[in-house]
Amino acid sequence: MTYCVGLFLDDGLVMLADTRTNAGVDNISSFAKLQVFSTPGDRMIATMTAGSLAVSQAVMNLIQEGVQDPETGETATIYTVPSMFRAASLVGEAVRQVYRTHGKAMQEHGLSFDVSILLGGQLHGRTVRLFQIYSAGNFIEATGDTPFLQIGEHKYGKPILDRAVTSETNLIDGIKLALISMDSTLRSNLSVGLPMDLLVYRKDHLEGPSLRRITEDDEYFLMLRKRWSEAISEAHRQIPQPDWGF
Amino acid sequence: MTYCVGLFLDDGLVMLADTRTNAGVDNISSFAKLQVFSTPGDRMIATMTAGSLAVSQAVMNLIQEGVQDPETGETATIYTVPSMFRAASLVGEAVRQVYRTHGKAMQEHGLSFDVSILLGGQLHGRTVRLFQIYSAGNFIEATGDTPFLQIGEHKYGKPILDRAVTSETNLIDGIKLALISMDSTLRSNLSVGLPMDLLVYRKDHLEGPSLRRITEDDEYFLMLRKRWSEAISEAHRQIPQPDWGF
Repeated sequence: MTYCVGLFLDDGLVMLADTRTNAGVDNISSFAKLQVFSTPGDRMIATMTAGSLAVSQAVMNLIQEGVQDPETGETATIYTVPSMFRAASLVGEAVRQVYRTHGKAMQEHGLSFDVSILLGGQLHGRTVRLFQIYSAGNFIEATGDTPFLQIGEHKYGKPILDRAVTSETNLIDGIKLALISMDSTLRSNLSVGLPMDLLVYRKDHLEGPSLRRITEDDEYFLMLRKRWSEAISEAHRQIPQPDWGF
Repeated sequence: MTYCVGLFLDDGLVMLADTRTNAGVDNISSFAKLQVFSTPGDRMIATMTAGSLAVSQAVMNLIQEGVQDPETGETATIYTVPSMFRAASLVGEAVRQVYRTHGKAMQEHGLSFDVSILLGGQLHGRTVRLFQIYSAGNFIEATGDTPFLQIGEHKYGKPILDRAVTSETNLIDGIKLALISMDSTLRSNLSVGLPMDLLVYRKDHLEGPSLRRITEDDEYFLMLRKRWSEAISEAHRQIPQPDWGF
């Protein structure tokens, strides 16, 4: 399994992905699920992928090699699209192309064609945007009302985001909340695993994003896990007892 | 959807169920998912059900009317079984009987035969036990290592239990943690809804359990929700910032 979360904040983007992929419990590997397509000064686009690794790798290849726009007939890549909306359309079209190539054969072998992609970024002179692209190639966009998107094993890590993330959350709090959300997922689902990849993009800093790989030994993450667990245990004790006469 | 959680603690049982059932978003009703089968002084047995309402109601009827043991040929009810293990077997056999009666017709109509049942309680002179019965009629039991079981929409409410519940947790803290787990689920999934039913059973108190229906106006639950949200928001702010130079 996979867990990826993207926060769409007024100050920019926080994107966090685990790196665990598996084909059964005896075949577990790490592959980067977070990829950055950046031309300093012009564009910063990043993707995170969940679902079939074969499908998502094929899609990632296609958007770099070029996908033909079914309407205009022109070939575009993630480095040439003129907007984030067109980038989301490009990824969606790449998903459909992979489906046309592999979908039927995968079905015949009982494999579901299953992929979800988060796509965030900014082009020069335009606003930051964050999209989620589905297996059908269609997509939705994060808004101020729903300032985060999740793919993969998303339920364990959702309550903390529902409670604490708003679009006004600053990038540093966003990093902390994304890490807490990931930690909740890591504890409750063994098939999501460290290390994880973190991207932080401050709005209008088109020279590039900040990236960090967080391993099991990462001192900050270890401290955050510990502090969070202690805070949770303490928090429920601080709540008064019910007066129900039980 | 449904969310039910049972805590298996050294001091006894905490069982909490929402009451929302639906057959599509325009057809939402409340039915008790928590049922108590109690003979004061002799036995306290309680069930919570998730999945198809038709199936779970049929099972609840059968265990009261009587189910024939396929090995001994004798008919037993939830009021006559001599142990909690035999109670779990009875429920499992009832599930299989409902499957034999309705399973094929349900399949023909594209309905999945889907039911999960938590069964907790104690018989005079014996220990408290908590079981989870599956759609196939087989079952597992909670142990000191895994002192809680969940059915239905379980993922949102699992992280808090993973972090805070041990078998040494007392009943009052158990009530708080079950309510927090339910609150996380209510916030993240609209198809789980209030009111909810709470059962607290103190070990060896065979005169009966304590029961409470918790509605939207319940002052304690409103206070707990508010205090918990504030504590969560405060907790992440208290964690130091990462020193990553972002």
